[in-house]
Amino acid sequence: MRARDIAEPFPTVTLDTDALSAVRLLAGQRLPGLIILGPTGRPAAVLPGSQVLHFVVPPYVQDEPALARAYDEKASDEMCRRLDEATVRNIVPKDRDADELPVVDADATTIEVAAVMARAHSPVVAVIDDDHFVGAITVSALLSHMIPA
Amino acid sequence: MRARDIAEPFPTVTLDTDALSAVRLLAGQRLPGLIILGPTGRPAAVLPGSQVLHFVVPPYVQDEPALARAYDEKASDEMCRRLDEATVRNIVPKDRDADELPVVDADATTIEVAAVMARAHSPVVAVIDDDHFVGAITVSALLSHMIPA
Repeated sequence: MRARDIAEPFPTVTLDTDALSAVRLLAGQRLPGLIILGPTGRPAAVLPGSQVLHFVVPPYVQDEPALARAYDEKASDEMCRRLDEATVRNIVPKDRDADELPVVDADATTIEVAAVMARAHSPVVAVIDDDHFVGAITVSALLSHMIPA
Repeated sequence: MRARDIAEPFPTVTLDTDALSAVRLLAGQRLPGLIILGPTGRPAAVLPGSQVLHFVVPPYVQDEPALARAYDEKASDEMCRRLDEATVRNIVPKDRDADELPVVDADATTIEVAAVMARAHSPVVAVIDDDHFVGAITVSALLSHMIPA
């Protein structure tokens, strides 16, 4: 069993997609994360949903979650304003390590996919064939193929 | 809007659940993670699916994913053996920080839930009321409630 046999269709965005549309996609389709394609069609980033939250939660609340109880409405308004003004490029953290990008070749074995996913702490990996995105594998889809029935 | 209004039913396991059953639950219901209840009914751990993979992937493959291509069948057999012999207690990493447990009170605001989830890098938070588990909130469910329609 190879990555190409397990990969499923998965919606993608680009670095220029507006942030609100990307977040709506994540929420509406209940995706575990965002797969962001670069200009050549190769995945430029794969962001877990929790990483997206880092962008939407105002910094003062991230530092001290208990503050959110007092400032909920103000924080929600600020979150919406941040999304309105941003593109996906702004959501991608600048300090991420390209070597840890959860992307596998279509020929990767199931254990190889699992290892890449575990190292990247990612709920989803992008599968590429000849440098083009061909689908994605979630943790649960991978495990369904790996464990005995 | 408070955590209790967004929380949804979510299957749980205990530290004594056998590992294979827990992984089957994760895979079969396509859960983003495992919520593990302690003896008092309070969540003892919340593990993202990718964390579970750390347990199932043999250590020599985690260190060098490229090895998986050569040893796929051997690694799969070893994975199944590890699951057969273990309970959930063995999957929970020993070095996790209890302060970072993604658990929120039923009265938590949406922004507070988002902040806790972002800090813990967790795809799901457990919601408790009076120290008892009452449901869970995934990143996508949370965002559906936070963003303007």
